[in-house]
Amino acid sequence: MLSEFDLITEYFDRPRPTRAVLGIGDDCALLAPTPGAQTAISSDMLVEGRHFFAGEDAARLGHKSLAVNLSDLAAMGARPVGFTLALALPSSDRDWLAGFARGLFALADAHGCELIGGDTTRGPLNICVTIFGEVAPGHALRRDAALAGDDVWVSGTLGDARLALAARLDQDTGPALTAAELAAAGARLYTPTPRVALGALLAGSRLARAAIDLSDGLVGDLGHILKRSGVGATLDVDALPAGPVLATRDIALRRRYTAAGGDDYELCFTAPVSAREAVLAAGARCGTPVTRVGRIEAEPGLRLADAVGAALDLQLRGFDHFS
Amino acid sequence: MLSEFDLITEYFDRPRPTRAVLGIGDDCALLAPTPGAQTAISSDMLVEGRHFFAGEDAARLGHKSLAVNLSDLAAMGARPVGFTLALALPSSDRDWLAGFARGLFALADAHGCELIGGDTTRGPLNICVTIFGEVAPGHALRRDAALAGDDVWVSGTLGDARLALAARLDQDTGPALTAAELAAAGARLYTPTPRVALGALLAGSRLARAAIDLSDGLVGDLGHILKRSGVGATLDVDALPAGPVLATRDIALRRRYTAAGGDDYELCFTAPVSAREAVLAAGARCGTPVTRVGRIEAEPGLRLADAVGAALDLQLRGFDHFS
Repeated sequence: MLSEFDLITEYFDRPRPTRAVLGIGDDCALLAPTPGAQTAISSDMLVEGRHFFAGEDAARLGHKSLAVNLSDLAAMGARPVGFTLALALPSSDRDWLAGFARGLFALADAHGCELIGGDTTRGPLNICVTIFGEVAPGHALRRDAALAGDDVWVSGTLGDARLALAARLDQDTGPALTAAELAAAGARLYTPTPRVALGALLAGSRLARAAIDLSDGLVGDLGHILKRSGVGATLDVDALPAGPVLATRDIALRRRYTAAGGDDYELCFTAPVSAREAVLAAGARCGTPVTRVGRIEAEPGLRLADAVGAALDLQLRGFDHFS
Repeated sequence: MLSEFDLITEYFDRPRPTRAVLGIGDDCALLAPTPGAQTAISSDMLVEGRHFFAGEDAARLGHKSLAVNLSDLAAMGARPVGFTLALALPSSDRDWLAGFARGLFALADAHGCELIGGDTTRGPLNICVTIFGEVAPGHALRRDAALAGDDVWVSGTLGDARLALAARLDQDTGPALTAAELAAAGARLYTPTPRVALGALLAGSRLARAAIDLSDGLVGDLGHILKRSGVGATLDVDALPAGPVLATRDIALRRRYTAAGGDDYELCFTAPVSAREAVLAAGARCGTPVTRVGRIEAEPGLRLADAVGAALDLQLRGFDHFS
């Protein structure tokens, strides 16, 4: 039987921290902040049966646990530094731990984001990552910074994660997904790509004003920007960039899953009209396409419109864990 | 029914953050580190049925969730700055939330430690606090800094928390606890006092070398210092300061519960012999008595001795969540 301390040593305590002054194995980790930088901090808790299915592949889960937190840093425009991992496990299963660590560290290494500490305990499977990044003072992309007249942008494509979830739950997918479609859409759901480089570039170059990452669906998440900025918006629903699988489905499904799908982990941000060319160039530079999908307005509320500007009433809303 | 966002607004989003540049309600919180300071970070996950009993009083749980993390900062000698709270709840019960927030914020306010962000979700009750503090470079009390010849000290008293747990579990308490004894010992188990001021003073004045907080029992926790420092120690078991309730029990129970009780949240630290008077003065200045209980030695391993220095074989060990 693997002890708590052997478990940490064997799977999570990697040699030679580079960013941390002191890493795993003491009462606290120690970080030396870059002089002048602000520290961005986010914490997400993933619960079995709620954020992922029981029996989910451990490597995918390791990836996703960190990805959703990296996505929060991306939405602030912060550069990743390190993270803590608190893990409740029903048992210390070596295969599971090896897989989880593999998925987690592959993504961590790709972003130079170091595991600096955490906690392990026995309990119903629960994964809590707290992540730390850095951003120059005044550069962070806040939810409260949108101005009337700004364009609304989204990165990448939307809705394929929701389509994969629908397939898993026997919900509406239009025609059943083929094996290739399942693989493509499933990759968006199970191993999302946080838009870290794009967020950092938009913040560093001060191109964007407000930003949020899309975890609960665009309509709900954009709503947070609107509420905190004291503005409204009109969203051009038919301009929303559907993922390649969803793009082959009919317009009603496309509208629903792009506008309120959830689990996209793309960025939604606002930027002045004068920045249009520069925003497109920033997307190109990061290899992450960006699409203009609406306009911030002084009038409160979120209005949905179709391609010719006619109002749509789609009865969409964001995800709420307690509703 | 309380929504996820109402829940945060109503119970956790307090007005006017003072330390955070940006608090609850964005993708990340933002902290502006004190120039020159290092950031100390710790994360602890508390699971129902593992770290606390099902049906535990919510206010006590709010206190303890933060106390165990403050205790980690204390053990590094770091000053508290802020914390994130990730909370999985079976339901959004208003009474529970109000009680939990009351216990949490009472302790947070006492230490000027601000809730800056977090996550709430539905799931088996699980509380994950990640805490941030600050310490001057080179001042942190690390586990790897003990030197042969150092005295071993503990703060406060030991074992009353273990005695309260024993009463709860129908384990050995000597004579059954009276109501007054249960209240006194129970306070140590359910609402521990983190030794933040003492830790900061020992670090700031560079009196102590190595330190750890006592969560899993002195024998196991001191073992971590010995292992990481590459040294050994002899512990004078009969010098261990028993809590006032345990102090009335027989010597065998006192030895077991002081040396390996767990849940004490006192500090164990090492300091050079030349610092004895200054260490006692530091304890007095913080209102936290400190007691010299052993000596660090070059020879690896932990040796237990009685009041006249004879070897004791108590078969004690630290707590392990997976053993």
